[in-house]
Amino acid sequence: MSTPLPWQQPITTPSDSHRQAALHRQAQLTKPAGSLGELETLAVTLAGLQACDQPRIEHVSIAVFAADHGVCEEGISAFPQAVTGQMIANFVTGGAAISVLARQLGADLEVINLGTVTPPPIEEGVIDEHVAPGTANLARQPAMTDTQLHAALAAGDRAAQRAANRQADLFIGGEMGIGNTTSAAALACALLGEDAAKLAGPGTGLDPAGVAHKTQVIAQALVRHGDQREPLAALASLGGFEIAALVGAFIGCAVRGIPVLVDGFIVTTAALVACQLRPELSDWLLFAHQSREPGHQRLLQALDAKPLLDLSLRLGEGSGAAVAVPLLQSACALHNQMATFADASVSNQNG
Amino acid sequence: MSTPLPWQQPITTPSDSHRQAALHRQAQLTKPAGSLGELETLAVTLAGLQACDQPRIEHVSIAVFAADHGVCEEGISAFPQAVTGQMIANFVTGGAAISVLARQLGADLEVINLGTVTPPPIEEGVIDEHVAPGTANLARQPAMTDTQLHAALAAGDRAAQRAANRQADLFIGGEMGIGNTTSAAALACALLGEDAAKLAGPGTGLDPAGVAHKTQVIAQALVRHGDQREPLAALASLGGFEIAALVGAFIGCAVRGIPVLVDGFIVTTAALVACQLRPELSDWLLFAHQSREPGHQRLLQALDAKPLLDLSLRLGEGSGAAVAVPLLQSACALHNQMATFADASVSNQNG
Repeated sequence: MSTPLPWQQPITTPSDSHRQAALHRQAQLTKPAGSLGELETLAVTLAGLQACDQPRIEHVSIAVFAADHGVCEEGISAFPQAVTGQMIANFVTGGAAISVLARQLGADLEVINLGTVTPPPIEEGVIDEHVAPGTANLARQPAMTDTQLHAALAAGDRAAQRAANRQADLFIGGEMGIGNTTSAAALACALLGEDAAKLAGPGTGLDPAGVAHKTQVIAQALVRHGDQREPLAALASLGGFEIAALVGAFIGCAVRGIPVLVDGFIVTTAALVACQLRPELSDWLLFAHQSREPGHQRLLQALDAKPLLDLSLRLGEGSGAAVAVPLLQSACALHNQMATFADASVSNQNG
Repeated sequence: MSTPLPWQQPITTPSDSHRQAALHRQAQLTKPAGSLGELETLAVTLAGLQACDQPRIEHVSIAVFAADHGVCEEGISAFPQAVTGQMIANFVTGGAAISVLARQLGADLEVINLGTVTPPPIEEGVIDEHVAPGTANLARQPAMTDTQLHAALAAGDRAAQRAANRQADLFIGGEMGIGNTTSAAALACALLGEDAAKLAGPGTGLDPAGVAHKTQVIAQALVRHGDQREPLAALASLGGFEIAALVGAFIGCAVRGIPVLVDGFIVTTAALVACQLRPELSDWLLFAHQSREPGHQRLLQALDAKPLLDLSLRLGEGSGAAVAVPLLQSACALHNQMATFADASVSNQNG
């Protein structure tokens, strides 16, 4: 028997006993039953995932995976492709949205380059997981080879291992890659059997004519690649290196018992691929927000996900997930620190 | 000419020039235009309210106003009335939800007692603004006299003054008072010309029969008090001391240039009274969340408010507003700390 590949390792089973204990505690805290709504659910879920009585979100590991996309040849983005490398530099020098949010949270921020057309102007602080200088153009050929797919998945798994080494309580995967809403929409269409028009959106800011063109590029790619519902095959044909790395990272986190907070459209596409590949993964995924990108709602629905926020965000980088972290921290603080009716000598309901 | 009463003082006009400067800065930050959604709006709004280039939410003042309600005689709550005093003690000893959240935020937490039937078991740490041991039963007579109304409004204004003395960047008003969803629903019905059935809800946890009885109590009170659309008259007839104090506090904050983050159903009712009394107040109000209490949506609609969160919270105490504070902090950090396209040598949209 050969050793299982990283994304084939067994996924940890959440602790039902800790989940039950957390439910029991919630019922005794000095508040009307259920009055903390989703914050109660979050605390109970995290207690089960972290297999502990006092869930905590103190050490957050954020990994931003960046890569370029051959499909940019088709003119599907409002930004030039050089921006992928430029933004990698902006991440490590601290000026990007995710850099600011990571500092605010005291979170670790890793920036992982899987391959850009234009090398980033700064190398220091960037984790080099070079696969190729961007994918091939998915409109004309498979985006990546199987070897490239496996390399990107393994790079994601290594990020999960580093998060585990740092004893992360929570993992956030972000992404950067000019053109990657086209790749993600095509991939999600293939996996869900949806039309391109349902999942193609403005991305970084296309006008209606741009969205129409992008939709056509995706529709043609879907015809070219045929009916491809097997997750890894679809990922190789239509995905991006950063999307594959996210798939590897999410499975790697669930293998190592680290909850994942899922960001927006691209990252949710990676979550969809990963859940189709490994359905047990879904226990480990919390969903941060409903993005403004129109296709996101369909992806969330496919994953039966109820996101925490709806703030019309559509930036990527993991930024929406980072913004949602304090909600998890509040949920934990309330669960761990509130007095019970008995502790505080407060009369309970109806009496 | 007599001195204007506190709630008649001139309300500060937000700075349009700072608002415009903030909009200009947002357009230059390294992100697709508009991609931070509501977080951009928040930063721009706060820059205008705080009249500064770098809006900040560092010093948060939370004031929880507590009082009892005579209408509890009608059996409209799932909890015994003694809980109001017991919870005052829980606030100051640190075991209540708002206590936990205030600690997490490093916020000041004031607990202000306007009058309970059963005195709180702890006096230390409670600010005594005694008006009466609860309101009269609004189902049978006016809830408060004009003198009591003025005392409660002035108590709220003093809380705003203390927040100003502490240089608060943001004010949160919370409330505690067994029976106060009945009072708030009756008051909102009077001000909006709505039926009791539209705004009466389960509060802390009434069953459907309980909600039906509460609706009847409110409907009868509305008949007894007649068509009362003048905000202060309606507040005296149907309100609570803590609701009146919130009205005084909110106007007092806007007079002193302190933005207010509005919590759930009861607090939004106070905001409605205050905005009907002083329409210029609305500039100063940010809305934290859509509560689970069914009538809240109607109140938010009346105030043209778009709340930040929708987490099925229905606890009160100011807890939903406290949970939303990190969103404002993230909005400020992103606005102040992100690099511009020029700073970071990142190419802007379309080239």
